[in-house]
Amino acid sequence: MTASPVSPASLESLEQPDAAGSSVTVLGLGPMGRALAGAFVAAGHRTTVWNRTPGRERELVERGARPAATAAEAVAASELTVVCVVNYRAVEAVLNAERVAEALKGRTVVNLSNDTPQRARELAAWAGERGIDYLDGAIMTPIATIGTPDGVFLYSGPEALYRRHLPTLAALGAGGHTHLGEAVGLAAAYDLALLDIFWSAMAGYAHAVAIAGAEGIGARELAPFAEGIATILPPIFRGLAAELEEGSYSHDDNPLTSAASSTAHIVSVSESHGIDAGVMRAVEGLLRRAIGLGHGEDGFARVAELLARGARGARPVG
Amino acid sequence: MTASPVSPASLESLEQPDAAGSSVTVLGLGPMGRALAGAFVAAGHRTTVWNRTPGRERELVERGARPAATAAEAVAASELTVVCVVNYRAVEAVLNAERVAEALKGRTVVNLSNDTPQRARELAAWAGERGIDYLDGAIMTPIATIGTPDGVFLYSGPEALYRRHLPTLAALGAGGHTHLGEAVGLAAAYDLALLDIFWSAMAGYAHAVAIAGAEGIGARELAPFAEGIATILPPIFRGLAAELEEGSYSHDDNPLTSAASSTAHIVSVSESHGIDAGVMRAVEGLLRRAIGLGHGEDGFARVAELLARGARGARPVG
Repeated sequence: MTASPVSPASLESLEQPDAAGSSVTVLGLGPMGRALAGAFVAAGHRTTVWNRTPGRERELVERGARPAATAAEAVAASELTVVCVVNYRAVEAVLNAERVAEALKGRTVVNLSNDTPQRARELAAWAGERGIDYLDGAIMTPIATIGTPDGVFLYSGPEALYRRHLPTLAALGAGGHTHLGEAVGLAAAYDLALLDIFWSAMAGYAHAVAIAGAEGIGARELAPFAEGIATILPPIFRGLAAELEEGSYSHDDNPLTSAASSTAHIVSVSESHGIDAGVMRAVEGLLRRAIGLGHGEDGFARVAELLARGARGARPVG
Repeated sequence: MTASPVSPASLESLEQPDAAGSSVTVLGLGPMGRALAGAFVAAGHRTTVWNRTPGRERELVERGARPAATAAEAVAASELTVVCVVNYRAVEAVLNAERVAEALKGRTVVNLSNDTPQRARELAAWAGERGIDYLDGAIMTPIATIGTPDGVFLYSGPEALYRRHLPTLAALGAGGHTHLGEAVGLAAAYDLALLDIFWSAMAGYAHAVAIAGAEGIGARELAPFAEGIATILPPIFRGLAAELEEGSYSHDDNPLTSAASSTAHIVSVSESHGIDAGVMRAVEGLLRRAIGLGHGEDGFARVAELLARGARGARPVG
């Protein structure tokens, strides 16, 4: 996750031991991978870099990183390998390359690529079978924050592994590293849940700007009001979480029928202007489904409960 | 809009002249209508109330409101009538009732019901033909804020009308009354645009809670991180508005292809748990459409531009 910085109050503060001089390998030199490697170099770690397509390491090498000819050579150079590629399929392609898994035996992989919790569990199992220590992670802040106090990272997997490599990983962002738990899917699950909120809100905003524009309101005129909406969300999120854990679904003054009426107006005004209303139609669908099940006088917590209901019994252990 | 308080910096501060003693009628005594009438009563205005279904006025009458037997009698009692019913269809039903329009001639209606900008324009035209002064409005804050400094109200229509009745309307919330402009659809347009953002974000949050729950993460564990996402939205909203007005669509480090990859992961993990992913599928659809049009390396502003593009030429004047 690179677009959605988040600094929740619960993030652990980090005491950063002196880890300069430890060795680390970075596999994958896209914009984020380059930022990660650059932060390790800047912190004084012996940093080895490799990318499937050559040429991307040049600027890092000028700054002191060591280029490797193959992924196997790269992972053999360090106790710790950080992988940052497009998704876990790409991770597998890299780690399954000739002699890479052998070279990694007894060493640690920290995977900072973005994918699903299930794929994290599969990769952890693959690593376990090969004697490779595996930690999953998610980058919660944009590239510009990497190596600064604003960099925020989530991890899941063996806590001992996390503690062992934290002194090195600290170079990526002294501000916030959080170990979420031993269940290796947790980092990906948090990442996707937060991206879910982020992209839904962004889609709503893009659509709001389109509606406003069709009604003669400029994006800059709408923006301060849109910011006001963002500002009211945190206590509403907190309140909804409390309601869900208490199993309380009553509405204060905003029943689902009223929300559905608002979403119908949004769909109507969108389509009257020729603006695609697919997202809001889907939101309205969730509300109508809840109403159809007899929950029209409930509050919005009911929608969350109904979404989760389908997932009951599917709760993973690891 | 009753669920989404907003306190943008642009809201005018209000100097509240002494308007105690003016007369006002409230039509519609649902929870919000009762709160409005109660605030007028508390401010010392001679307040007349009416509701299609009788009985709802009781508590207000005990506090000093005057009950009216018919809507016509109610509107005849005051210079200013405030309407707050479920939508503009209900407004029309009330105002078209026997002798109501006649009684309103030369008086003012402020419509605080929720509906589309087009319906506001139609109602304003209807009122204009009957010699009724019409101001449209939107309530931006929850019922609990009505009559307190936190109540926020938006208005559109003739500015002179707004200025004339502001001393009375101020009783509803001294904190923020904003006249958006003479184009009567503006209040409804802002209202729906802001509700668009609000309900999209809420749907994303409900879905995130469901995914997190299926992965063993409690709603209360996710909440602080979700609040962190809300916290980063205001500067992102501001930045996107600036990009749109400049026609700048480049991405910093988050191209649409990367966003589409994230949304695909969210859909995948949802459906693996049996969780409906309709909203995120629609969000992904917007991203894929932009990518299909050759904009994969653009930033998210391109999605807003594409949504708005369908609406070009449909810009209303009034």
